[in-house]
Amino acid sequence: MTEREGWPVSGEDRLIARYFRPLATDPGALGLLDDAATITPPPGSDVVLKTDAVVGGVHFFPDDPPDLIAKKALRVNLSDLAAKGASPAGFLLSLALPPALGGDWLEAFARGLGEDAGAYHCPLMGGDTDRTPGPLCISIAAFGIVPSGTMVRRRGARPGDLVVVTGTIGDAALGLHVRGDPGMATRWRLDERQRDHLVGRYLLPQPRNALAEALRLHATAAMDVSDGLAGDLGKLCAVSGVAADIEVARVPLSDAARKAVAADRALIEIAFTGGDDYEVVATVPAQARDALMAAAQAAGVALTEIGVVRSDRPGAHFLDHGGKPMEFKKASFSHF
Amino acid sequence: MTEREGWPVSGEDRLIARYFRPLATDPGALGLLDDAATITPPPGSDVVLKTDAVVGGVHFFPDDPPDLIAKKALRVNLSDLAAKGASPAGFLLSLALPPALGGDWLEAFARGLGEDAGAYHCPLMGGDTDRTPGPLCISIAAFGIVPSGTMVRRRGARPGDLVVVTGTIGDAALGLHVRGDPGMATRWRLDERQRDHLVGRYLLPQPRNALAEALRLHATAAMDVSDGLAGDLGKLCAVSGVAADIEVARVPLSDAARKAVAADRALIEIAFTGGDDYEVVATVPAQARDALMAAAQAAGVALTEIGVVRSDRPGAHFLDHGGKPMEFKKASFSHF
Repeated sequence: MTEREGWPVSGEDRLIARYFRPLATDPGALGLLDDAATITPPPGSDVVLKTDAVVGGVHFFPDDPPDLIAKKALRVNLSDLAAKGASPAGFLLSLALPPALGGDWLEAFARGLGEDAGAYHCPLMGGDTDRTPGPLCISIAAFGIVPSGTMVRRRGARPGDLVVVTGTIGDAALGLHVRGDPGMATRWRLDERQRDHLVGRYLLPQPRNALAEALRLHATAAMDVSDGLAGDLGKLCAVSGVAADIEVARVPLSDAARKAVAADRALIEIAFTGGDDYEVVATVPAQARDALMAAAQAAGVALTEIGVVRSDRPGAHFLDHGGKPMEFKKASFSHF
Repeated sequence: MTEREGWPVSGEDRLIARYFRPLATDPGALGLLDDAATITPPPGSDVVLKTDAVVGGVHFFPDDPPDLIAKKALRVNLSDLAAKGASPAGFLLSLALPPALGGDWLEAFARGLGEDAGAYHCPLMGGDTDRTPGPLCISIAAFGIVPSGTMVRRRGARPGDLVVVTGTIGDAALGLHVRGDPGMATRWRLDERQRDHLVGRYLLPQPRNALAEALRLHATAAMDVSDGLAGDLGKLCAVSGVAADIEVARVPLSDAARKAVAADRALIEIAFTGGDDYEVVATVPAQARDALMAAAQAAGVALTEIGVVRSDRPGAHFLDHGGKPMEFKKASFSHF
């Protein structure tokens, strides 16, 4: 402990001042000099609350670049705010640090976090930093704003709605396999660019916050695809009390994923159930389809129609070329 | 995975449904069936944001009773809301679970958490559950409501204000020593009740939420005492740009702590700097002293005047009977 201007400066104070105070740009964060922060929601709005944690050795490799670990930790939360139609308002960071991670690691981590906090207009509002004898554990709670009562929910899909999905599906799950066994890339006949694409999609999600307002205006239901399209859409259907028929051929795959699936047809199951996509799956009334598509184009977000909602027994059905439903061994990722 | 009503039920879904859904009593939590929750702050209010994590082997012993671990994890956050003058509105739970913790543990954990969520009117709004190869890590983000601009801050203490503190100081830090080495209780000549008192204060903080409104109405500055009274009050003084003279003889000690300090005078330093008190230290203008004291009495919270704020060089000075300032080796607990 050193004394400076009467302040009993601890190691934790110094760590916060050096690495994290620069990220606390919102006046409500009080420069991280208080015990809590405040946000003042505009009149007539709801605050959307979300928390997601990532754990070293579980959600990322401990030797992944620290700036990308930071961005992934924030982006998995931003992705939920996007799907719910909310504008980011800020986040709290809870960090359990193994002793091996020192100043260089923290500097890169904070730099990555700051870049995304700026890019997504989601400032750091406060946090907590602890030591842990275990792996790095990063828990973020993110806050968004929506006009009262307009958060896009999982419940709300109606028979006749169209099912749409952003970006491409399966890249991150395939990228995780390549990340763990580089020989995969050769077996799947991927070139370097395709391999890097898949691994990059695993390392760094691309949350679709640019589409949030359009989803709020047009979608009847939405969720982010984090545990696999098949299982996540199944949950949306269950809560909405509807069925969805998805045409497998229409599900957007990157050229890298397409090449991998061409080399090994069984990979389609990994693509649809492996998780970590951080895309948005949504349902939209047929008459709002064009408006949502136009908004997506204006926002620079690829959006693809992949199926239709029916009033059958709840569930998501993935139909092959012959209209036969695919059977998945495990529809979604689960830690338990 | 089992299919029920078209829902692809994962182990995580079952875990949430069984243990945590009963705690999600607020309509905004959507029964934990969505990706996010909402709170609708009353017009003209701010949302107070706080996160604090506890890690097994760092903040609690892995074999502490699971219901008490849950309560401590929530109460360390409630304590901050209390000091900031905020009414609890809900919390998010992020849980990283070691494989050894099974259903019995989770049931007791959720029971404890639910009891406190009810008692403090702070419902579970959402969460995230992951596996970890490391120790149990519980990160809670808690939300409170205050009329806009009225959160009680660390900054705000003014020369002439009186310094007050709730409850008793040092019990938890001494309790931690006894918890780690039961022989301490004999050396300190504690009877069984006194030993249990100290250990109990370590295991289960008593956040002072009953005093929140009175603090908001009368205090010029406040913070919860989590890292030791000396260091925490030092931080409040530094941010406020003031000094505080504390009369050591007036700092409230339990009879157990008093007996321990009588047996070993050096323990007073542990009591004042050891942390885990979860009491509130606040400053109050002299003319508001009686109103705050009356409110504390009405709320059933012990509140003691311990010193006065001066315009000297910022810092907290603990003065002994002769008016001589105590020197602490380390004014507050820090993980770094």
